[in-house]
Amino acid sequence: MEQQMLAELKRLVGAQYVMEQLEDRICYSFDATFRDFPPDVVVKPGSVEEIVAIVKLARQYNVPVTARGAATGLSGGSVPVQGGIALVLTRLNRIIEIDKANRVAVVETGVITEAFVNAVNQAGLFYPPDPASAKTSTMGGNIAECAGGPRGVKYGITRDYVLGLEVVLPNGSVVELGNKFDGDMAGPDWTMLLVGSEGTLGIVTKIYLKLVDKPSAKQTLLAIFNSLDDAANTVSEMIASGTIPTTLEIMDNLTIRAVEDYLKVGLPVNAEAILLIEVDGSAAAIAKQAGHVMKVCKQCGATEIQAASTPEDIDKLWQARRAISPACGKINPTKISEDATVPRSQIPAMVRRLREIAQKYNLKMVIFGHAGDGNLHPNILSNKHDHEEMERVEQAVEELFKAALDLGGTLSGEHGIGYMKAPFLKWETGETGFAAGQKIKQVMDEQGLLNPGKLFNA
Amino acid sequence: MEQQMLAELKRLVGAQYVMEQLEDRICYSFDATFRDFPPDVVVKPGSVEEIVAIVKLARQYNVPVTARGAATGLSGGSVPVQGGIALVLTRLNRIIEIDKANRVAVVETGVITEAFVNAVNQAGLFYPPDPASAKTSTMGGNIAECAGGPRGVKYGITRDYVLGLEVVLPNGSVVELGNKFDGDMAGPDWTMLLVGSEGTLGIVTKIYLKLVDKPSAKQTLLAIFNSLDDAANTVSEMIASGTIPTTLEIMDNLTIRAVEDYLKVGLPVNAEAILLIEVDGSAAAIAKQAGHVMKVCKQCGATEIQAASTPEDIDKLWQARRAISPACGKINPTKISEDATVPRSQIPAMVRRLREIAQKYNLKMVIFGHAGDGNLHPNILSNKHDHEEMERVEQAVEELFKAALDLGGTLSGEHGIGYMKAPFLKWETGETGFAAGQKIKQVMDEQGLLNPGKLFNA
Ligand SMILES: Cc1cc2nc3c(=O)[nH]c(=O)nc-3n(C[C@H](O)[C@H](O)[C@H](O)COP(=O)(O)OP(=O)(O)OC[C@H]3O[C@@H](n4cnc5c(N)ncnc54)[C@H](O)[C@@H]3O)c2cc1C
Ligand SMILES: Cc1cc2nc3c(=O)[nH]c(=O)nc-3n(C[C@H](O)[C@H](O)[C@H](O)COP(=O)(O)OP(=O)(O)OC[C@H]3O[C@@H](n4cnc5c(N)ncnc54)[C@H](O)[C@@H]3O)c2cc1C
Repeated sequence: MEQQMLAELKRLVGAQYVMEQLEDRICYSFDATFRDFPPDVVVKPGSVEEIVAIVKLARQYNVPVTARGAATGLSGGSVPVQGGIALVLTRLNRIIEIDKANRVAVVETGVITEAFVNAVNQAGLFYPPDPASAKTSTMGGNIAECAGGPRGVKYGITRDYVLGLEVVLPNGSVVELGNKFDGDMAGPDWTMLLVGSEGTLGIVTKIYLKLVDKPSAKQTLLAIFNSLDDAANTVSEMIASGTIPTTLEIMDNLTIRAVEDYLKVGLPVNAEAILLIEVDGSAAAIAKQAGHVMKVCKQCGATEIQAASTPEDIDKLWQARRAISPACGKINPTKISEDATVPRSQIPAMVRRLREIAQKYNLKMVIFGHAGDGNLHPNILSNKHDHEEMERVEQAVEELFKAALDLGGTLSGEHGIGYMKAPFLKWETGETGFAAGQKIKQVMDEQGLLNPGKLFNA
Repeated sequence: MEQQMLAELKRLVGAQYVMEQLEDRICYSFDATFRDFPPDVVVKPGSVEEIVAIVKLARQYNVPVTARGAATGLSGGSVPVQGGIALVLTRLNRIIEIDKANRVAVVETGVITEAFVNAVNQAGLFYPPDPASAKTSTMGGNIAECAGGPRGVKYGITRDYVLGLEVVLPNGSVVELGNKFDGDMAGPDWTMLLVGSEGTLGIVTKIYLKLVDKPSAKQTLLAIFNSLDDAANTVSEMIASGTIPTTLEIMDNLTIRAVEDYLKVGLPVNAEAILLIEVDGSAAAIAKQAGHVMKVCKQCGATEIQAASTPEDIDKLWQARRAISPACGKINPTKISEDATVPRSQIPAMVRRLREIAQKYNLKMVIFGHAGDGNLHPNILSNKHDHEEMERVEQAVEELFKAALDLGGTLSGEHGIGYMKAPFLKWETGETGFAAGQKIKQVMDEQGLLNPGKLFNA
């Protein structure tokens, strides 16, 4: 990186927010995936104006810019694969407004998801998207990846809550997309072009979000199965029967054991699978719905159904759900986490395909995820230093993507494409869809400087 | 239009589906707005392949193509302002699939909205978007305008139900955008680029839609007010109090009189305003919610609240709502229907501004609309042959747009931009937003042949 550019960066944002030492650059070289690419410089702007200036400078010197929230991404989105500037956005962390009358919130990109969820909660409202990484991830990262979460079944995912965005475009201009409220329909919704765009089309600086009513009550159930197939069938049957719980999470035996080992919350370690089910709404409605849920579970072969009644018990179950990732990380050092997603009626078929694939390539695979959404998280536990094994992992991953697409599914239900899935994107979009994606990227970012090596410009 | 092109069109789709007589062209020259632009030729393709061939031919001869559903649009979207081909899509009218297990439907673009709603209903599920034009409008037109409707308050609008699209791009290639289910998040959501794009970015041929649970019960209430301001306040208060009914429609006195005159259903013609409110859900939940709704109405000054109990009474009220447009059309020949929309807390302020504007320009204005959504429909009743009056109308419309934007609102809550609001679009998007919109249009449609004169290429 040219010394003159570094000097200008320091002048723009202050020297303490520009880091160029190798040790600092390494700290910003990775995310929750498993390859490292250090940036040439780490920059932490404190305002939209500074971001505009940085983007313009990057254009002038033709240097890539990769936006970075909390780097919890699972597809390598924030990793600067072509070096350049790591643009760390955590200083823009104000919750600007929670407008109760209009049920709208306005936040800056760097706000931590959980901080926002709590603030909304305190205002007596509800923001449903709830990625397991909420304690760490930023709202901007959630937007850029269109994060999902266990409540997607009933409440939808991040995109269902984004009303508008303030964005710094690759040419350094600032636009307001969408609107502060829900009824806006003046032309196509450019907002959604940015949601899920993984930092390739613009830097999101401000976010307008829709809020909803807090459900007055909820109930959490744990259904235990002797067979993973039965649990998978239960998911499809439940949805087909018209009962849409708030969450419908699946965990297979390996997952259960890993979590129990790590957390000791009393999960049934001998069960082949469990479903973690939550219903919410008015007290009357949930009693009825919980009854229906239990009926379907029993019909589909659940051997036992436990209702968590105390707040502590409920909390334990959700702790267990959130602990899956770290718990699996303890089993094997390298966790290849996929989120290939299928229509909900295809969950049983997908579970079968996943087990066949694990067996064929002799790999340790845990299966869990937001099953009610069709969103399974097959995680392959391996060791990135074992090259022979990693080759098998690669083949298995390819086969897993093909299986999902065969079943009418998608490469990613929520974790995005990043650099990791970019080589496969064309399988899903087709040639013409891919070409359209590339063209839009080109027109918005002529020099190709925003997060190169990802999505359509990998 | 060149004779050779006409001959090729006839060869492509069959001579009976190519109409070139003036009388036929006139039939396809207008929509629900008030200016006519006849196409050079009317073409009614019967398949995606034919549409592809037509689009390619149009490119070759450099002739505009304007997609047309049922032409019920309220912003002039389907009107071929630069001539060329009127591409009438009503022959693609198959409901391909209603997949109960995955709660997804697949329809062709020309399916009439109500036919689809009924089919979903029969399958035991629910498709909430419900424009008042549902008996006539097409699903493709609903997508291209992102149609709203009375249930938007609780259930959202068309875009909230679009999972994926099959689209013929301006270069004649066919892409599948989005996916057959909800969990798809492989990259930005190109689907939403097409929703609301008013035929300027591609021809939608097939639509994947999300379906939801049918509410088990509903209740319809009619709240009567002595003051329009009180009714408007009630809307804001209701939303702020956390009670989100399914619908929350407002009608002012002029509207009430017009409808009663036309339909004779017993509306309270002396009321200054009424709110038509529906709640739905489980029987227990709606009883509670209806109670809350009545309380807020009373607190805000409702003089009377009637609960429609029999299906006939409920139907009458909704008939009245749907009859507003035709009823107003009977008062004055030209109805300039706007749908400038504001945040819900600004409804009272917007209602005041609207009345000031009507008074200032001495115009007859009815105010009704999906107030719960912030979406008011001020309609100016005039006569397009009275040029002096039409000038005042134009000024009033401009002022009305400014008022909506001042209050943090938008030019259009659901009717789109078309050619009618295109001159004002920049007020809302700003220069950079407008430039970005134009660029995306240019890259997707280099020759500018899809629906020229609308939205970003007006
Ligand atoms: C343990 C664990 C559990 C997880 N659980 C879930 C889950 O349940 N659901 C789920 O969806 N995901 C989950 N994830 C994935 C990850 O947390 C989400 O993708 C999250 O949204 C990333 O947020 P972040 O702030 O860490 O973004 P980063 O990883 O820093 O960045 C992600 C992408 O967003 C871009 N970006 C960040 N900020 C901006 C901005 N302001 N403008 C433009 N682009 C920007 C980056 O360039 C990058 O492409 C999990 C991850 C972990 C490690
Ligand atoms: C009495 C009345 C009541 C109304 N009530 C409502 C209401 O409550 N809510 C509401 O939102 N709207 C309402 N409208 C407006 C109108 O009905 C909607 O905008 C509707 O979605 C238009 O559908 P259409 O099939 O008539 O489309 P058209 O008017 O034929 O076309 C509308 C636009 O869509 C484009 N288009 C059509 N098909 C395609 C396709 N396959 N691919 C690409 N572009 C396409 C056209 O080019 C045009 O730009 C009302 C209109 C009337 C007359």
